Amino acid sequence: MEIELRLVPENKRRPVPELKNLIFGRLFTEHMFVMEYDCNRGWHSARIEPYGAITLDPAAIVLHYAQTIFEGLKAYFGVDGKIRLFRPWENMRRLNRSAERLCMPKIDEDFVLEAIKKLILIDRAWIPREKGAALYIRPFMFGTEPSLGVKPSHSYLLIVILSPVSAYYQEGFNPVKIYVTDEFVRAAPGGTGEVKAGGNYAASLKAAEVAKSKGYTQVLWLDAVERRYVEEVGTMNIFFYFEDELVTPALSGSILPGITRDSVIKLARHWGLPVSERRVSIEEVIEGAASGRLKECFGTGTAAVISPVGVLCYQGQEYLINRGETGPLARRLFDELTAIQYGEKEDPFGWTVVLG
Amino acid sequence: MEIELRLVPENKRRPVPELKNLIFGRLFTEHMFVMEYDCNRGWHSARIEPYGAITLDPAAIVLHYAQTIFEGLKAYFGVDGKIRLFRPWENMRRLNRSAERLCMPKIDEDFVLEAIKKLILIDRAWIPREKGAALYIRPFMFGTEPSLGVKPSHSYLLIVILSPVSAYYQEGFNPVKIYVTDEFVRAAPGGTGEVKAGGNYAASLKAAEVAKSKGYTQVLWLDAVERRYVEEVGTMNIFFYFEDELVTPALSGSILPGITRDSVIKLARHWGLPVSERRVSIEEVIEGAASGRLKECFGTGTAAVISPVGVLCYQGQEYLINRGETGPLARRLFDELTAIQYGEKEDPFGWTVVLG
Ligand SMILES: Cc1ncc(COP(=O)(O)O)c(C=O)c1O
Ligand SMILES: Cc1ncc(COP(=O)(O)O)c(C=O)c1O
Repeated sequence: MEIELRLVPENKRRPVPELKNLIFGRLFTEHMFVMEYDCNRGWHSARIEPYGAITLDPAAIVLHYAQTIFEGLKAYFGVDGKIRLFRPWENMRRLNRSAERLCMPKIDEDFVLEAIKKLILIDRAWIPREKGAALYIRPFMFGTEPSLGVKPSHSYLLIVILSPVSAYYQEGFNPVKIYVTDEFVRAAPGGTGEVKAGGNYAASLKAAEVAKSKGYTQVLWLDAVERRYVEEVGTMNIFFYFEDELVTPALSGSILPGITRDSVIKLARHWGLPVSERRVSIEEVIEGAASGRLKECFGTGTAAVISPVGVLCYQGQEYLINRGETGPLARRLFDELTAIQYGEKEDPFGWTVVLG
Repeated sequence: MEIELRLVPENKRRPVPELKNLIFGRLFTEHMFVMEYDCNRGWHSARIEPYGAITLDPAAIVLHYAQTIFEGLKAYFGVDGKIRLFRPWENMRRLNRSAERLCMPKIDEDFVLEAIKKLILIDRAWIPREKGAALYIRPFMFGTEPSLGVKPSHSYLLIVILSPVSAYYQEGFNPVKIYVTDEFVRAAPGGTGEVKAGGNYAASLKAAEVAKSKGYTQVLWLDAVERRYVEEVGTMNIFFYFEDELVTPALSGSILPGITRDSVIKLARHWGLPVSERRVSIEEVIEGAASGRLKECFGTGTAAVISPVGVLCYQGQEYLINRGETGPLARRLFDELTAIQYGEKEDPFGWTVVLG
């Protein structure tokens, strides 16, 4: 399939605003990639066109039954002036796993990745240049059929939009305070927690609101069955550094298999640090925090890369981790991963893709 | 707040098509009700306008994080020529409970109900006249703010669309075959199962696909924790008639509190039949089916009113209920509820609202 280009004429382009102090996901570039699906024709009408409003029938399935999935990755402007993506195939594969779970059509991963690259190159002036800042890439796909029957849509849109984002840590690498919820549940085994279904995020808003009202930044979720085993935090996976072992919850079926999570596991093992993916109970975590056996705790995700956790609140009690400070392992992982992403260091794993 | 009328001029109205053999939720009437919300102005711009496409920013929250909820009720054309709604206040209250759970703004229940009545009267020619057929009413509300941060939207649309629907049982009152899934989970306690969040329905598509591929009409969901206690079926609540007791799963926090469910409970009690809301294990159900202790099983919901279950499939084994036939209790409940809805019988509970 060809990608049709319907670009904003050069002399009509918007000047790129100053890419500083951006609020995440509010500013978008000039173009977007769009592709349509219907049962008869399959995917068709792939095009890069000016960013702008889309029209939907009010009965479109996405508005009623939330048949929608998404991905999130970034393009980095390197110290060598090259633009890099970080493990983008993993996002394409995960998008297809999400599609499968929600009974949506598969995409051609290579084709969509090529379209994303093309789109980024067209809007390359929108990639912020400082270290830490990046161009956030948001592919998403949703059902558009106007039908109120609860069944998979016969038609879909896949869209990719781009948003310049500032460095996550604008004032230094600061540990966050996290609230462990035993009231709300994010996902159960047999549910949709291991894919990026839109509904998972709507379901998480309330717990985040409660956490925020109590002065915490994010929610740590426990498992749906025993409300005891740690799952993940907000939009990040979680790691615990116990004595000489780095531990992260095993992919239980209700945890999102984060690409940063996988990269941290591989990097730590590459350094010779033992990593285990297993069940971690909240008791083990708080006992470790109290005894000092838990040396560090941090979240991992595309947005922050590594987010050190300084305080955990569980059942009304606060637990300090590493005196509330960023630990050396979190720091080293952050430095190494960002060095790879920004082309400052060699990429021994073949994780980056250089554009253009 | 005033409702602005922007109606299709009388001489431009579409002729009403023949309201026969309609596929559920595909045909819509000429007008819709729309109301907008933003944090500064609250709800505003209420209007009844021609049914038609809506425009959304591609970054609108609903398309990414599924912040969307809905309701479903019907308007019935009575044997006396009067139009009736059935317990519509319950739908308004449930819409507000759904809004609360998804961090969305509350609506003024009286105002929206009045708007719905006005809309129905404008499009009254679209209400099918045969018994069993009705005008399906779909209020829904979703976040429109163009922002990729995972947080509640600052702006919303509430829309009501109307769809004429044929009688659910076009060829007689036929028992359905139901597949008990022990692979997929609909909702966990602490999740969103007790409200009408769009995401619940996207999450249910896969199990329905599996059931259909094996020759079953609907899925019976078990609880997320023990995978043992019956929850509900597809878009219906479920009842078991054991010897002389009518049983339905208690509202556990992950079951939708159906309005038909509540009506069946009240009606059966009114008739002097003991009803209990309690836990029902799948073993109790299949043992009851085998021994004959389970006399009837049926689903309840706005779409079908009562849907008798003739066959249950659990772990590869089929269980026949009441020889696969519709039982007298299901029949009596169906007849009585529809008689109230269509104004054929007195309404001792004050459930119906006559329009116009
Ligand atoms: C629920 C959830 N967990 C974890 C992650 C981290 O995944 P990744 O490292 O691929 O960004 C994300 C973000 O994508 C997420 O939404
Ligand atoms: C999941 C679910 N359960 C049960 C029901 C039945 O509810 P009601 O009787 O209010 O239509 C519905 C339909 O609204 C539903 O979507």
